[in-house]
Amino acid sequence: MQVNPIQLFDAESSTFTYILAAPDSRDAVIIDPVDRHVERDLAHLERLGLQLTHVLETHAHADHVTSAGLLREHTGAKACVPSGCGIAPAEMQLQDGDVLTFGLREHIAVIHTPGHTAGSMCYLWRGNLFTGDTLLIDGCGRTDFQSGSAADLYDSVTRKLFTLDDATRVWPGHDYRGQSVSTIGWERRHNKRLAHRERGDFIALMAALDLPRPKLMDVALPANRQLGLPDGAPGVVSHRA
Amino acid sequence: MQVNPIQLFDAESSTFTYILAAPDSRDAVIIDPVDRHVERDLAHLERLGLQLTHVLETHAHADHVTSAGLLREHTGAKACVPSGCGIAPAEMQLQDGDVLTFGLREHIAVIHTPGHTAGSMCYLWRGNLFTGDTLLIDGCGRTDFQSGSAADLYDSVTRKLFTLDDATRVWPGHDYRGQSVSTIGWERRHNKRLAHRERGDFIALMAALDLPRPKLMDVALPANRQLGLPDGAPGVVSHRA
Repeated sequence: MQVNPIQLFDAESSTFTYILAAPDSRDAVIIDPVDRHVERDLAHLERLGLQLTHVLETHAHADHVTSAGLLREHTGAKACVPSGCGIAPAEMQLQDGDVLTFGLREHIAVIHTPGHTAGSMCYLWRGNLFTGDTLLIDGCGRTDFQSGSAADLYDSVTRKLFTLDDATRVWPGHDYRGQSVSTIGWERRHNKRLAHRERGDFIALMAALDLPRPKLMDVALPANRQLGLPDGAPGVVSHRA
Repeated sequence: MQVNPIQLFDAESSTFTYILAAPDSRDAVIIDPVDRHVERDLAHLERLGLQLTHVLETHAHADHVTSAGLLREHTGAKACVPSGCGIAPAEMQLQDGDVLTFGLREHIAVIHTPGHTAGSMCYLWRGNLFTGDTLLIDGCGRTDFQSGSAADLYDSVTRKLFTLDDATRVWPGHDYRGQSVSTIGWERRHNKRLAHRERGDFIALMAALDLPRPKLMDVALPANRQLGLPDGAPGVVSHRA
């Protein structure tokens, strides 16, 4: 049965945060939370009567700072991050093929999708794919910094994502045009960057984008590698021990 | 099993639109669509492979124009409106206690909740309550124009909504603080306007608000009574016949 996540939006960085509530228990997972919305996200958990068990990151973000460390301090949830992203103070370093469980019978499949960053992961839960900056609605993440690779992104999307069931719902990490959700079938047929495009053509397209450097990058990246907390903060140290 | 709607947002009027997708068929219903987002909403239906069967309005809005007429023209969906809102060119004039069906086994209960306007309705689907401007997250709609009544809103919320199951999810028609969803239990216990407040006190509180007149009111109200189409437009005439 199709169960949708709860989708939350940060208007400043156009970032989506997702709450995945187990349909038959109080347990919940949050994906890609944003630092300035920690009170909003805690309010949602409280109003919905949810207990946060895991905080997931799709990658080390360059455009906003995570609230993973703060949420962990408030709720006791485990921080789960892609193993290749250099986010040391997390309880779980996820690998391709891992299955994360929560609630009574919820499974989140971990899919390594390098390209936007070398460590980027997508997460699949009940027919819902959380794509971070790998696959966007009618687009994809940039591949020109932070160990990005257009060739890797092309392979990740075409071999690992476009081979999923057509009805799989695609919940992106960002949208800049007011869109919320798509499907694998639609993106495979229509995505303007990736559908019906050869690998070499895609690499040339991405190389020609000439995008500006993310404004927050020098702040966000080091912060996100510490789960958004200052290095050495009590919450971090205690969890490293 | 908890099935969430798809929530879409209009940043200009802070209006939420909801797509309710039947979990076991392609049929879908949309609630309170906004005129300027008709392309966005049609794109979501297309990407998700959904067939729109009904367009619902919670009331005749004063702050934005509906796209109900346009969506009907594009999809053949039936326009369903509260009977007391003066929206003549609709296929269905809903009454309190009606049950609207779609998909294979989806039921939407119609609950008449006068107060924000005399005709305002809430819709209940699979434990999800769509409250329009009757009950907002930690607030409620204004009651000072368009046949509004603070006394009626108090009775509607306390007798018809706060008596629903505590876990019922509350999906409001607007939010102005970045919140997305709440529950009946939380609102009954904590809503700053309505929780633990006497009827007379609530009426006095609402009378003292002294809110500005909605900017779009003189445009939006007459337009919404025609489902957002110019009076006499072909789509309207054909459906009146």
